[in-house]
Amino acid sequence: MKKESIGIGLMGLGVVGGQVAKVLTEKASALAEQAGCPLVLRKIKVRRIDPERPRAHQLPAELFTTDDDEFFNTPGIDIVVEAIGGENPAREYLKRAITSGKHVVTSNKEVIAKHGAELRALAREHHVGLRYEASAGGGIPLIAPFKHDLVANEISGIYAIINGTTNYILTRMAREGIDFPAALKSAQELGYAEPNPENDIEGIDANYKLAILASLAFQHEVRPEDIYCEGISRIGSRDFRYARELGFAIKLLAIAKLVDNAIEARVHPVLIPEDSLLAKVDGVYNAILVEGDLIGKVLFYGQGAGPSATSSAVIADIVASAQDILLGVGNRFKWKAESGKKIKPMAEIETQYYLRVNCADRPGVLAQISKILGDLKISIASAIQKEADMTAQTAELVLMTHPSPEKAMQQALSKIAQLEVVKEISNFIRVENI
Amino acid sequence: MKKESIGIGLMGLGVVGGQVAKVLTEKASALAEQAGCPLVLRKIKVRRIDPERPRAHQLPAELFTTDDDEFFNTPGIDIVVEAIGGENPAREYLKRAITSGKHVVTSNKEVIAKHGAELRALAREHHVGLRYEASAGGGIPLIAPFKHDLVANEISGIYAIINGTTNYILTRMAREGIDFPAALKSAQELGYAEPNPENDIEGIDANYKLAILASLAFQHEVRPEDIYCEGISRIGSRDFRYARELGFAIKLLAIAKLVDNAIEARVHPVLIPEDSLLAKVDGVYNAILVEGDLIGKVLFYGQGAGPSATSSAVIADIVASAQDILLGVGNRFKWKAESGKKIKPMAEIETQYYLRVNCADRPGVLAQISKILGDLKISIASAIQKEADMTAQTAELVLMTHPSPEKAMQQALSKIAQLEVVKEISNFIRVENI
Repeated sequence: MKKESIGIGLMGLGVVGGQVAKVLTEKASALAEQAGCPLVLRKIKVRRIDPERPRAHQLPAELFTTDDDEFFNTPGIDIVVEAIGGENPAREYLKRAITSGKHVVTSNKEVIAKHGAELRALAREHHVGLRYEASAGGGIPLIAPFKHDLVANEISGIYAIINGTTNYILTRMAREGIDFPAALKSAQELGYAEPNPENDIEGIDANYKLAILASLAFQHEVRPEDIYCEGISRIGSRDFRYARELGFAIKLLAIAKLVDNAIEARVHPVLIPEDSLLAKVDGVYNAILVEGDLIGKVLFYGQGAGPSATSSAVIADIVASAQDILLGVGNRFKWKAESGKKIKPMAEIETQYYLRVNCADRPGVLAQISKILGDLKISIASAIQKEADMTAQTAELVLMTHPSPEKAMQQALSKIAQLEVVKEISNFIRVENI
Repeated sequence: MKKESIGIGLMGLGVVGGQVAKVLTEKASALAEQAGCPLVLRKIKVRRIDPERPRAHQLPAELFTTDDDEFFNTPGIDIVVEAIGGENPAREYLKRAITSGKHVVTSNKEVIAKHGAELRALAREHHVGLRYEASAGGGIPLIAPFKHDLVANEISGIYAIINGTTNYILTRMAREGIDFPAALKSAQELGYAEPNPENDIEGIDANYKLAILASLAFQHEVRPEDIYCEGISRIGSRDFRYARELGFAIKLLAIAKLVDNAIEARVHPVLIPEDSLLAKVDGVYNAILVEGDLIGKVLFYGQGAGPSATSSAVIADIVASAQDILLGVGNRFKWKAESGKKIKPMAEIETQYYLRVNCADRPGVLAQISKILGDLKISIASAIQKEADMTAQTAELVLMTHPSPEKAMQQALSKIAQLEVVKEISNFIRVENI
């Protein structure tokens, strides 16, 4: 299709939207060359007009509107870029854009994680592209590999450090020996964690991103509620000390595996071998390790957030959409209606476990705990006993098991907690040997 | 374009070609779904018919031919996959395929490094795709990021461990304290290095791959002869010891940078900080670190060679070509005719240097060397003097400079070598702080 220009309608002029507008303006000529014709910003939908907002005063006032109808009725918009985030009204906006025949680019992980299947089907029906590279991993190409580069592979596993806030907090804890509350507070002061940090530290953000990645990797809709999710607030500085002693690092991982045509998907802290490449991913950086039958292991690493990195992915999607429009290509995404795969319940997963128990400092404790584990066919790989507290007459016992079913381990935990000699199960962390 | 199937002509049934044929056969149904219709192997061109060759006996005999004309005249070939390697006749085969209107996929680094510009122009002229993801980095998507994912970025640097053989040898040297000849011999025995290892250890293989990557990243033809190239055979076990003492690892890096619109491209051993992610890339693994203005640093890691990983990239290219054919898309690659960039001569680069000098064990040596460096405005960042050999009355002096121009450093080296107190400049390695 020969076109003089490709028109862009931008929804939202926040951190991401503002940066997208900036790049579209500043790199106009380079992007025109990549896309095949100029990319022209035709309308910007904002909640309220605020000429003092950064970027806003650099853009012509007539570009702005607060009115949905005015935005969607603007002539010459070929691509709608949604950068407002959140589930609603983003979902309705995306549906409206798609049904009115516009190609769509979004950086919104929540709406894609929750409504990806619906939006993909709608986009296919209306012959338009739906692109969301920026929804996971910021500027790191994480979506593209599953759609293009790795298509010859059967993906067997995804292991991802995909939330910068929690990785920053865990890195501080590992390096400085500080506890979670202190690390969180410092992260908040430095702007790496939000005043209300729940979304990050409870693993919700990682959950959304994993839902997106696993759905693509396994060609099966993995919904946020299919994913077991546990945050990092229970991790103590002691866990880092013991983990190190055992040769492990602690990371919040988003894990998805395909075993016997069943999908296992979970977000929780894990011990990983300290010489694993993922163990070296520190601070706000993200990384995803993908295992496929042909490629073996590949890893992608970079800045998983931030306006600049995110805009890199959004603009790449805009350019790809523009190329498709010029080539007369509508929707190109393949998706099996029925994959035949199942989601595995958490109780059925099998992994190794790290267990830290606060118990009475007297003989026979290990024997009692070992018996419970043994009866449930859980065998112990290693044990450390130390940190005896003379006054309280307690000791700390750290156990690492061999691979065992989650169900048996949960039964063991509840029995161990009931032992008279056990004061408290201080922590319980799964282990991944990657 | 509605088609019943996409026909594939395969040239070469060696390690890569054989694996491609295997995957096309074994994954036929999954690939048909990805591509949009079945991918059918219609002809295989081999140098000689050998029914005993692995794979060959699993394929119908009528697929094989040794005759070029028969191959190119086979009806229904839409995509030609070149897996014979080397410069000629691969170049002529690719040209013939392109000029007869076939989309082309190749894993051949040498032909793309040397003739990429010619082949790209030809493919554009004949409205067909030219894809070569497997030519660099095996199964790791290295080409795709530059063509798609990072298009919004101005790339400022590429730092790549892109030859598995040399990385394996250097890893063994670093871990075991052995010297180059022993590590090479062991690598050869294990099949990680070829009986004639020159192509790998002298950096020629890395040179080709860097030419391909730099040409894409900077949208400017970087030819193999534009790249300074130095192998790893001069590295000694002592260099690893001193490097470690200074906090560095030693890797063979392929480096390309864009500074003031001038392209700097070189392959040589470097000292990199040991906490750099690239320093953790061990054994036959490859990794590429890319710096862009929006994304900051991204890193891609995986198996850079091997039939299985390489076939993953070749098949992804075949699927992309098939999708394009079905969508009626010919050539889609943008390439500026004139980028306006220059190639920077090696003498003009600026970096830090590590220098190991075997000198007389007597006072004043450091003063004499420092004077030469100082006169050339090269300042010393750190110095280690040790390993005195009592019998020979010599000592080893290790210096690390601050960033200095290569030209001045080469002058300094030749002056230092002439000092009466200097027995020998034992080694000289550049340093990259990445």
